[in-house]
Amino acid sequence: MPRNTRRRPTPTHPATEDIDLLDILRALADPTRMTIVRVLRAEPERACGTFPVDVAPSTLSHHFKVLRESGLITQREEANRRFSALRAADLEHRFPGLLDTVLAAHARTAAPAAEPTPTA
Amino acid sequence: MPRNTRRRPTPTHPATEDIDLLDILRALADPTRMTIVRVLRAEPERACGTFPVDVAPSTLSHHFKVLRESGLITQREEANRRFSALRAADLEHRFPGLLDTVLAAHARTAAPAAEPTPTA
Repeated sequence: MPRNTRRRPTPTHPATEDIDLLDILRALADPTRMTIVRVLRAEPERACGTFPVDVAPSTLSHHFKVLRESGLITQREEANRRFSALRAADLEHRFPGLLDTVLAAHARTAAPAAEPTPTA
Repeated sequence: MPRNTRRRPTPTHPATEDIDLLDILRALADPTRMTIVRVLRAEPERACGTFPVDVAPSTLSHHFKVLRESGLITQREEANRRFSALRAADLEHRFPGLLDTVLAAHARTAAPAAEPTPTA
């Protein structure tokens, strides 16, 4: 039954078997998108305006679109907010080990400011 | 009369410790460059005009430049030919497991036509 009365279109997502490796690599090859993915790796989901990134809203919307269309994240609407979540299980099924290997590589070289704060 | 005596500038390469993950991901996120990397994974080096890719020479030069500047390949001149080689050891040192994981992911979904062909 059609329930889509919101202003924004319902986000569409590729099926797991349609996730393309080059799309994933291209999506990850950007510092803002990499930050979003790293944040989502550590929590189940997050509202789109609450990520620790310093870009204009329109730019951020573009980054989320690239991430969603690549298959890296899902997005859902709730009470006029958009929540994002990493498709960790889908990605592991499609490309075993890929996401963890890329994130580990990034952690080796990330700037200290991007590292998780150690417990005192 | 020799027509190709003009020397091209010696290619420069980033030091291993300067190889950037996002540059690597961006370099790999292209079908032609992925094919070049997969071919080089299987042999020590190869002359630049002999890869099984169907792009114009100027486009191919651009792809090799992206690969070289990212740190994925080295290039050297010999007798007016340019040879390319994968920096597999440097990459493994910098980002352990990354290249193999990405290539394994690509092999899971690559079309048969994209498989490397043997040297003629």
